[in-house]
Amino acid sequence: MPNEVKSLNEECGVFGVFGAQEASQITYLGLHNLQHRGQEGAGIVSSDGKKLYQHRDRGLLSKVFADEADLDKLVGDRAIGHVRYSTTGNNSIANVQPFLFHFYDGEIALAHNGNLVNAVSLRRQLEEAGAVFQSTSDSEILMHLLRQNKHLGLIPALKKSLNQVHGGFAFLLLTKDKLIAALDPNGIRPLCIGRMANGAYVVASESAALDIVEAKFVRDVQPGELIIIDQQGMKIDHFTTNTQLAVCSMEFIYFARPDSIIHGVNVHTARKNMGRLLAQEAPAQADIVIGVPNSSLSAASGYAEEIGLPYEMGLVKNQYVARTFIQPNQALRERGVKLKLSAVRGVVKGKRVVVVDDSIVRGTTSKQIVKMLKQAGASEVHVRIASPAFRFPCFYGIDISTRSELIAARYSVDEIKELIGADSLSYLSVASLIKAIDLPDKGDAPNGGLTVAYFNGKYPTKLDDYEAGYLASLKAQTAREEGKK
Amino acid sequence: MPNEVKSLNEECGVFGVFGAQEASQITYLGLHNLQHRGQEGAGIVSSDGKKLYQHRDRGLLSKVFADEADLDKLVGDRAIGHVRYSTTGNNSIANVQPFLFHFYDGEIALAHNGNLVNAVSLRRQLEEAGAVFQSTSDSEILMHLLRQNKHLGLIPALKKSLNQVHGGFAFLLLTKDKLIAALDPNGIRPLCIGRMANGAYVVASESAALDIVEAKFVRDVQPGELIIIDQQGMKIDHFTTNTQLAVCSMEFIYFARPDSIIHGVNVHTARKNMGRLLAQEAPAQADIVIGVPNSSLSAASGYAEEIGLPYEMGLVKNQYVARTFIQPNQALRERGVKLKLSAVRGVVKGKRVVVVDDSIVRGTTSKQIVKMLKQAGASEVHVRIASPAFRFPCFYGIDISTRSELIAARYSVDEIKELIGADSLSYLSVASLIKAIDLPDKGDAPNGGLTVAYFNGKYPTKLDDYEAGYLASLKAQTAREEGKK
Amino acid sequence: MPNEVKSLNEECGVFGVFGAQEASQITYLGLHNLQHRGQEGAGIVSSDGKKLYQHRDRGLLSKVFADEADLDKLVGDRAIGHVRYSTTGNNSIANVQPFLFHFYDGEIALAHNGNLVNAVSLRRQLEEAGAVFQSTSDSEILMHLLRQNKHLGLIPALKKSLNQVHGGFAFLLLTKDKLIAALDPNGIRPLCIGRMANGAYVVASESAALDIVEAKFVRDVQPGELIIIDQQGMKIDHFTTNTQLAVCSMEFIYFARPDSIIHGVNVHTARKNMGRLLAQEAPAQADIVIGVPNSSLSAASGYAEEIGLPYEMGLVKNQYVARTFIQPNQALRERGVKLKLSAVRGVVKGKRVVVVDDSIVRGTTSKQIVKMLKQAGASEVHVRIASPAFRFPCFYGIDISTRSELIAARYSVDEIKELIGADSLSYLSVASLIKAIDLPDKGDAPNGGLTVAYFNGKYPTKLDDYEAGYLASLKAQTAREEGKK
Amino acid sequence: MPNEVKSLNEECGVFGVFGAQEASQITYLGLHNLQHRGQEGAGIVSSDGKKLYQHRDRGLLSKVFADEADLDKLVGDRAIGHVRYSTTGNNSIANVQPFLFHFYDGEIALAHNGNLVNAVSLRRQLEEAGAVFQSTSDSEILMHLLRQNKHLGLIPALKKSLNQVHGGFAFLLLTKDKLIAALDPNGIRPLCIGRMANGAYVVASESAALDIVEAKFVRDVQPGELIIIDQQGMKIDHFTTNTQLAVCSMEFIYFARPDSIIHGVNVHTARKNMGRLLAQEAPAQADIVIGVPNSSLSAASGYAEEIGLPYEMGLVKNQYVARTFIQPNQALRERGVKLKLSAVRGVVKGKRVVVVDDSIVRGTTSKQIVKMLKQAGASEVHVRIASPAFRFPCFYGIDISTRSELIAARYSVDEIKELIGADSLSYLSVASLIKAIDLPDKGDAPNGGLTVAYFNGKYPTKLDDYEAGYLASLKAQTAREEGKK
Repeated sequence: MPNEVKSLNEECGVFGVFGAQEASQITYLGLHNLQHRGQEGAGIVSSDGKKLYQHRDRGLLSKVFADEADLDKLVGDRAIGHVRYSTTGNNSIANVQPFLFHFYDGEIALAHNGNLVNAVSLRRQLEEAGAVFQSTSDSEILMHLLRQNKHLGLIPALKKSLNQVHGGFAFLLLTKDKLIAALDPNGIRPLCIGRMANGAYVVASESAALDIVEAKFVRDVQPGELIIIDQQGMKIDHFTTNTQLAVCSMEFIYFARPDSIIHGVNVHTARKNMGRLLAQEAPAQADIVIGVPNSSLSAASGYAEEIGLPYEMGLVKNQYVARTFIQPNQALRERGVKLKLSAVRGVVKGKRVVVVDDSIVRGTTSKQIVKMLKQAGASEVHVRIASPAFRFPCFYGIDISTRSELIAARYSVDEIKELIGADSLSYLSVASLIKAIDLPDKGDAPNGGLTVAYFNGKYPTKLDDYEAGYLASLKAQTAREEGKK
Repeated sequence: MPNEVKSLNEECGVFGVFGAQEASQITYLGLHNLQHRGQEGAGIVSSDGKKLYQHRDRGLLSKVFADEADLDKLVGDRAIGHVRYSTTGNNSIANVQPFLFHFYDGEIALAHNGNLVNAVSLRRQLEEAGAVFQSTSDSEILMHLLRQNKHLGLIPALKKSLNQVHGGFAFLLLTKDKLIAALDPNGIRPLCIGRMANGAYVVASESAALDIVEAKFVRDVQPGELIIIDQQGMKIDHFTTNTQLAVCSMEFIYFARPDSIIHGVNVHTARKNMGRLLAQEAPAQADIVIGVPNSSLSAASGYAEEIGLPYEMGLVKNQYVARTFIQPNQALRERGVKLKLSAVRGVVKGKRVVVVDDSIVRGTTSKQIVKMLKQAGASEVHVRIASPAFRFPCFYGIDISTRSELIAARYSVDEIKELIGADSLSYLSVASLIKAIDLPDKGDAPNGGLTVAYFNGKYPTKLDDYEAGYLASLKAQTAREEGKK
Repeated sequence: MPNEVKSLNEECGVFGVFGAQEASQITYLGLHNLQHRGQEGAGIVSSDGKKLYQHRDRGLLSKVFADEADLDKLVGDRAIGHVRYSTTGNNSIANVQPFLFHFYDGEIALAHNGNLVNAVSLRRQLEEAGAVFQSTSDSEILMHLLRQNKHLGLIPALKKSLNQVHGGFAFLLLTKDKLIAALDPNGIRPLCIGRMANGAYVVASESAALDIVEAKFVRDVQPGELIIIDQQGMKIDHFTTNTQLAVCSMEFIYFARPDSIIHGVNVHTARKNMGRLLAQEAPAQADIVIGVPNSSLSAASGYAEEIGLPYEMGLVKNQYVARTFIQPNQALRERGVKLKLSAVRGVVKGKRVVVVDDSIVRGTTSKQIVKMLKQAGASEVHVRIASPAFRFPCFYGIDISTRSELIAARYSVDEIKELIGADSLSYLSVASLIKAIDLPDKGDAPNGGLTVAYFNGKYPTKLDDYEAGYLASLKAQTAREEGKK
Repeated sequence: MPNEVKSLNEECGVFGVFGAQEASQITYLGLHNLQHRGQEGAGIVSSDGKKLYQHRDRGLLSKVFADEADLDKLVGDRAIGHVRYSTTGNNSIANVQPFLFHFYDGEIALAHNGNLVNAVSLRRQLEEAGAVFQSTSDSEILMHLLRQNKHLGLIPALKKSLNQVHGGFAFLLLTKDKLIAALDPNGIRPLCIGRMANGAYVVASESAALDIVEAKFVRDVQPGELIIIDQQGMKIDHFTTNTQLAVCSMEFIYFARPDSIIHGVNVHTARKNMGRLLAQEAPAQADIVIGVPNSSLSAASGYAEEIGLPYEMGLVKNQYVARTFIQPNQALRERGVKLKLSAVRGVVKGKRVVVVDDSIVRGTTSKQIVKMLKQAGASEVHVRIASPAFRFPCFYGIDISTRSELIAARYSVDEIKELIGADSLSYLSVASLIKAIDLPDKGDAPNGGLTVAYFNGKYPTKLDDYEAGYLASLKAQTAREEGKK
């Protein structure tokens, strides 16, 4: 979740609605409940059946639509919206979605959550043939493919194009008379459908966005599906049948809202189960259990219940954002300024504390938390991570693809324990992670229908452009492990 | 705490530091951890021993100091700061503190948390004698009294003036060479002293503001004390010895941060105790216990532990603020738009739920929460309030002084239960509240050294200007109760 | 006029209206045409006969009222407004007018253009008696005096107070039922009265503000007058009869809009006359005459007509404001960056140019202009100043009171000519200045009813607090002149 | 010029520099002096020889670069910039230039002033072949053509592409190692080259932009030329030799700055000549001559000199912008609120006034001016227009292409005189316009090397996509004229 002390970042959330008056206002509400998926840009494209209308800008949703008039001009009963996370340097306005394309034969808007693994090679092929891209985003590629195939007609062209892109993706498209949703063949990114009391259809990255607009959950979009919504209603089609479920496990561990339900599993409940199983796998001799707010509170309460220790509020999160330029004198800075988290002295003083966190990325925050708790008087600090160790990059839309900084890729658990200053450290096993989530519709899909490649390096798709980089990282890892022996 | 779904509002937080380089930056940090005490205005006055420098404006701290230069120009090693809550209509820039007064014989800055009960009559007397006020705040009165008494010298004049004002107050004053703190004779508002590693003294409304600047807690300011800090160090003086401890119980129930320690009691721990005692007084036949985030989570976990039911996350708070102008079509609005809170369907569905809240003011939020939980599938909703029923106004700095809307002042517990649609409703008793807080330095003060007038109408001070209003409200209440018989 | 390349600054403009619906909107329009008198702050106070409503902030009028709602909330049929210029360091929000004072027995708003010469001593007396000032502005003093005298009743108290303040001043006051205007005994600052078609009265610093609201000019406020406007109409009273007209000549030379009429004299016409008389006093052998836009264009055209040379556009003013932080590399900066003015090469190339300017303050701009014209190919540059040389400070509201940088106070005309690099330099004589303006109602007032102290050191009032400073400056000047001999 | 009371709008200005440190700061300065050519968007792309860096946004230059950091990040010694005017509805950020395109084989930035007459058909052809446009601007077309031709190599591909586009255009392109400028075969839009003292080359829409960066004028870019600037210096090439000079006469009449020199003619001088010739063609029995500020002042002074009447300042322009939402009550609005212009009563009262304006578009402003002058007391108002009557649309970059509102296309001179309430009205003849400008390098080009199609319907290029629209307008006009007979 956003404003967390972690540096894992989801790359976007999408929302669409068809058939509801004030569709742009409904989309605003939906995006409000998806804001945790991206805080660096937001936009909405609406249509009244005649034209498409757009507003987008950098920043939080509330800033982008700070002026009421900007929302009012997005008229019509259909709309799609997007919230965007972006890595530094690419936060250009040109990359803020939904993209809106004007063609002589019509307008199309596009919103995308995910990452294509063959974007670089596809883009090069397209550019060789004369294509001109304005964004640096891989999302624009689909539109170029679609136009290359346009002689086939919209839906066949779209199906063909969706088979040309590889990776994890949830696409929403809006034309003046259709709202279209498509999900990758592994269903890596979440996407679900709801229906409002007035019959309007809603599509959203998470079910929490259905709740805020009082839409009833209808179904999850399934791998390889193409959903077409128009005046005649909703049609469920598909662009491929070569599919296999591999939902991103990080959605359950960290990204999604606790009140969302993904493929039948409530996120909070999954996290609580992770905490329970972690307690079974890695109990600790301690007095109290605390969680790192907010994303780890579910797991912490599960851990506490399972092990039979009191669950306490040992860390408090500051809900206000401080200006980043505030840097008091060196002495103060060195002792560590805690703008986001505070330890509750009255709770942890003199106690052996189990602190449950959902993940460790670079280890710097964990180190600060341990230090903070000890300064507040904790006699022992036992760190328990309610997910397996991150060792491999994500290529499907989470911003850890380029990070050589994954601490677990470079150090053993014992080494990490020393680095962060904990009295003990344990991670959840991959098997327990799968068991904690326990997807009802997993069938016989590997890994219980989840993508757990971040932990074991086994990716559900070909890696295409990333193949070389992945192999290099794998080799380095093996070499490191060999060296240890 | 701020951004809560409640409409109780603290009227300010104060912070001061003397003897630390970049004092204004340290004050910014301190105010950052006091931001929950006031979000409608903020300011800092600093001094380098020669002049006083000021910056203040409406809005959150991060907005007021959005431009780095505004903080940089506040040079010097001493500063005071203020965060302000204000009632609608008075949110003029003229009322944003600290006030800075320029006199021919020196400059004085003033920051105030609290409310004076004789402000109206004092102001009238002063105006009759020719005084000109620029703010509508009662805080300015002290400065006029101080100047009327100025022939006595600063400290004697201040002591005399502090005896002329009645009510609950924590004042900070800054001259070019002194930082002065004063607390009302009942210690109604919290105020504590800390010390940084470099010897600098810090004064703050809550100890959480000491923590963020890594100052060690020294002591609470005691009722009637006058603390004078200058180059020679700290001197503890007093302006009256006619004192009796009566700390505002609402600080423990609702306002203060859970990590703060007030008169030796950790706020989180006190809240957890309130939950425990509430479970003893008012157990419920249920499956799970949930709290209203964030201020009621401590009490909810105490309730759950005591009663032996699972403590679950049944409500999630949205950490992003939505634009208030978003008002979708009537149908949607009527069904209630939940921008701030969401129920976790996966948790509450089919369950008998105890929802613990810290207080009920007007009842509208409680009604929404019950409805939201039932819509999410809860089979029963039992509301448990971890404080006694609010029946009387606060005259010491909490914004419920003018509220005829206190639901508990007009309805019985049974009536309220019906109004909010709960299956059962119970409040904590005053006795249990006092027991839960259990102030170590209460001595033989009435009500365990707490102000509990909001619940029982027994105020620790004379009410002066409010006497008539109070009597009227009391009479109305009695009449109502009589009528019931 | 503002955004000019000069560093002379008027300290404010005032506007008031009584009896017109949407009075605050009318006041906005009036202030729009007075914006040249102050760009650093603006505000309006309105009344509906029951309460007073205020909005004010730092910055240009269009920024202060950027949000339409801020104007809409200023309801009622009466209002006063203010635009403010301020010297660096005092640009605090506390100093932005109109001030609004809330007393137990009523509210009063105050707007002021001018400067009091006994402000320091009055303020000291008041503070000795316990008065508390919030602004550093001298304008607040009148309110303190008024309240000291309040037992007399509003109008008598005001008359007494106006006799206690000395200097140049135009005051507007607004209570819930009265709009009051007062002008100093010498009428130094301009102030005039108009009437709208619907009967509403308007009071403004300049007649150009009457024009924009389509009010007909009624009369100038005369020295020592007190104008009281209420539901019964307008009453012309006075607070003193010991008066003598001494209108600030700088209003005609530089500050006022060319379309304004002050005491019967159109400002553009006066300036054109200054140019004509300057041509008679100081002709030049040249090919063309140009003016420094915008304030010197009238004088330049008069000079050209009188001398019979073509009047050309040799300098162009950029109407857009550049960011001040733009500082290209040193080489470029040294050659002088011309963000505000550009020479017209096609006009001046190979020509002997007379450039007419209205004044020289520090000389730096004149030096740049001469250099710019020569770089553009002018063969000779003859500078003609359409006013006498500034040698003495203004104590009545123009921001040159503290300037030791007045070039003409330190150097002779010949020396200045050398310093600015001109081929010749002449100023207008004081006698010609008086003749050019030629006030119709001057009677037998000295200096034709004008204040020309900036040129000859003869002030129309006692100088009170400034006496010592003035004498010192006079002595230094005499010493310098002696030294020359 | 911008902020004028006219509704003619130039569609952009361009600036480029190669070989100067802090190239983006220099570009900012250049754009500052081109701001009158477009106020609705601005941007700069720079390069350090390795990468291209971009910042652009809607609004004035000073707003777009309000944050110093936005300019600082545009590092390198080469840059191009753009200021944009846009018609309502298309003011999307996607249309703000320079465009920056990222290709796998390099980056290219593009800035454009002008309009292509075959944009619609070219775009359709490109889209048929799969091209995806993000902007609605015709400028993007050149990039698509360039990429279609890229197998030829950059310069040959560019030459071929420039022959495919028709109309009036000045293009600047920046790659990491080249700055390229191209001008249409008729040289309709102005573009000139300068050189800084350090050897850096500068290209700009107007010579006024060379002046502010202290670059010496080198030459005008000639029709059909392709200028290539790189580390080796400047190379003058061409993409066609089928050229004929037809400079837009509106640049001289209205758009360009008076200090600019276009094809050897100073704009102010040309305007003054227009005024002189207008006086010969259409003298008036009057007392004074005034101009409409600012763009008509040159012509007015020429008229006055030629006819021997005093040139006066009878209209004053307000240099501050008022909020557009200010709409006082109906009565006031009907009498006409003059936020931008004011008549100088002291000048025009009782006088027969000649008011010189540069053009009439819709006639509404002229009507207001006449009314304003009469209300201020003018006894007669004779309107003289220093250009021929606008009867035909511009297809080369001036925003009158879609205007059926051209008053002179629908009414005779006599009718217009009545509509605007003038006592007499005359326009300049086309022959005198040509004579007034008198281009030195016109050779035997028709119309003295100028485009005067707006007056006589004879366009210098084929009209392609606009042919049908033009013919229709011509037919309507003829019909109207026939009907009059």
